[in-house]
Amino acid sequence: MPLPVSRDDIRAAHERIRPHIRRTPVFSLPHGAFGHDGPVSLKLEFLQHAGSFKPRGAFNTLLTQPVPRVGVAAASGGNHGAAVAYAAKQLGIPARIFVPEISSPAKVEAIRRFGADVVIGGQRYADALAACDTYVAETGALSIHAYDSLPTLQGQGTVALEWEEDARGLDTVLVAVGGGGLIAGIASAWAGQGIKVVGVEPEGSRALHASLEAGRPVDVTVESIAADSLGARNTGELVFSIARAAVDHVALVKDAAIREAQRTLWRDWRIASEPGGATALAALLSQAYRPQKGERVGVLLCGANVELSRLADIL
Amino acid sequence: MPLPVSRDDIRAAHERIRPHIRRTPVFSLPHGAFGHDGPVSLKLEFLQHAGSFKPRGAFNTLLTQPVPRVGVAAASGGNHGAAVAYAAKQLGIPARIFVPEISSPAKVEAIRRFGADVVIGGQRYADALAACDTYVAETGALSIHAYDSLPTLQGQGTVALEWEEDARGLDTVLVAVGGGGLIAGIASAWAGQGIKVVGVEPEGSRALHASLEAGRPVDVTVESIAADSLGARNTGELVFSIARAAVDHVALVKDAAIREAQRTLWRDWRIASEPGGATALAALLSQAYRPQKGERVGVLLCGANVELSRLADIL
Repeated sequence: MPLPVSRDDIRAAHERIRPHIRRTPVFSLPHGAFGHDGPVSLKLEFLQHAGSFKPRGAFNTLLTQPVPRVGVAAASGGNHGAAVAYAAKQLGIPARIFVPEISSPAKVEAIRRFGADVVIGGQRYADALAACDTYVAETGALSIHAYDSLPTLQGQGTVALEWEEDARGLDTVLVAVGGGGLIAGIASAWAGQGIKVVGVEPEGSRALHASLEAGRPVDVTVESIAADSLGARNTGELVFSIARAAVDHVALVKDAAIREAQRTLWRDWRIASEPGGATALAALLSQAYRPQKGERVGVLLCGANVELSRLADIL
Repeated sequence: MPLPVSRDDIRAAHERIRPHIRRTPVFSLPHGAFGHDGPVSLKLEFLQHAGSFKPRGAFNTLLTQPVPRVGVAAASGGNHGAAVAYAAKQLGIPARIFVPEISSPAKVEAIRRFGADVVIGGQRYADALAACDTYVAETGALSIHAYDSLPTLQGQGTVALEWEEDARGLDTVLVAVGGGGLIAGIASAWAGQGIKVVGVEPEGSRALHASLEAGRPVDVTVESIAADSLGARNTGELVFSIARAAVDHVALVKDAAIREAQRTLWRDWRIASEPGGATALAALLSQAYRPQKGERVGVLLCGANVELSRLADIL
């Protein structure tokens, strides 16, 4: 059965969004980096506009869907909201962003800086989503879902096309999972291409892991230091169906391992990352994923929207 | 008259140090970045071991000079010291590093973490250098100068070889100048290659600018927020002779422009940089250097050894 998103869909999305996004660099590391006896390739996607991969999906949606005069709306723990606000501003479209109270001030400030209306309310991502849905029903605004949407997945999958061109070969990639839009896009791009796609979730925020175990999308409770970016309660049907077919497995990491990955990235690499942005690396460092000797491992560093003062406190 | 360092010398240095350094990525930016109507290429050299370009020269020195049993010594505002400590540790050589009191705690801590003896004393770089010279005279330790030395320049110049391979063409590069080892190495690599090398110094720390104006190396007073990495009082004869022949000119930037470059790098690019690491970009942002339309400009981001809490305070 073909996947709902094809490699050709993602190629088309890449052509479409290319003028609007940054082609983020790939950093090919010397043998032995992070203790791995083999090459490691870092995709530095935190250097993207608005500090995460999310503008890829936002631009692809705005460039393929009819946009009503009232504009666009999105619910987001922060990065998706900042990305929609950024993309809307670039394209001259009004945006309203619904964020839960858990969102970091750095992210909320970024959303406002991009000119969007910000509505803060509710404890969790699901609360913000409910408020957004109500607004969309009342106004007819275009809703951009953070992950449970085809144009979003097609946009996020474009990371894979750049990475395969710029890396010196990839056997396995580690990708952090929140709602799963990023990994579903990447897994769709590489389905049948011989690259193993491994998801990484915090133990306390395992929507995809739990769903794959249950054989259907299930709700989970969310309690993790990475909740502000990875804290989705449910992946939805679309991400689940792709992940079941094209994701190898999901590795789970402790919050302490995420913290250690943030520390390592700053201390040894001078990369400032948010917890969700360091989660994929945490799997390699903590051996939640153990590559074979010589395995060409890719690690996606997907976001850096952290307050520096808060990052300084945990280092 | 041939330059004291040739492109072949730098090629040889690159072969020599390649197993020990990181090949840092080049980030090719979309048109319009930093307000420039043309392409911009960032060399992300702050991702190097020990957080700056300095290990290139340190490894090249340790791999070409006889090292006595007492080991190596260096005087450094911080980055060179960290680099010598790092390189010495990798090669199993004892290191003693002399740093002035002005050095940031982050840098001193990094030097200690790499296992070196640290001697803190004196107000300025020149004081640390005097103490280091005394130690070297008494013990016979190998001294690694931060810039006034051929093997150091040959090592620093290797940045240019990587950059020209990875960028999509370069017309002009902007390089921050402290003692001038980096720019002298780069200018040597590109002498006669058609790439214009422009130095950037803080107005309050302009050793090379003043020397080029005077026609000989002269002492300057140093007062700048970038003094902990760019605060050399005199470039020395070697750097001066190369810069006079192969550096196009030196642009001067205000401390406020350096701060603004640090803010821009974090806000729009999620790159944490020290003042000296943002100084080259400050010339582009403040128009201390004004490229022509379409000019292919390279900006070297050369260091990120900043304390995050301090960086957070100035953002």
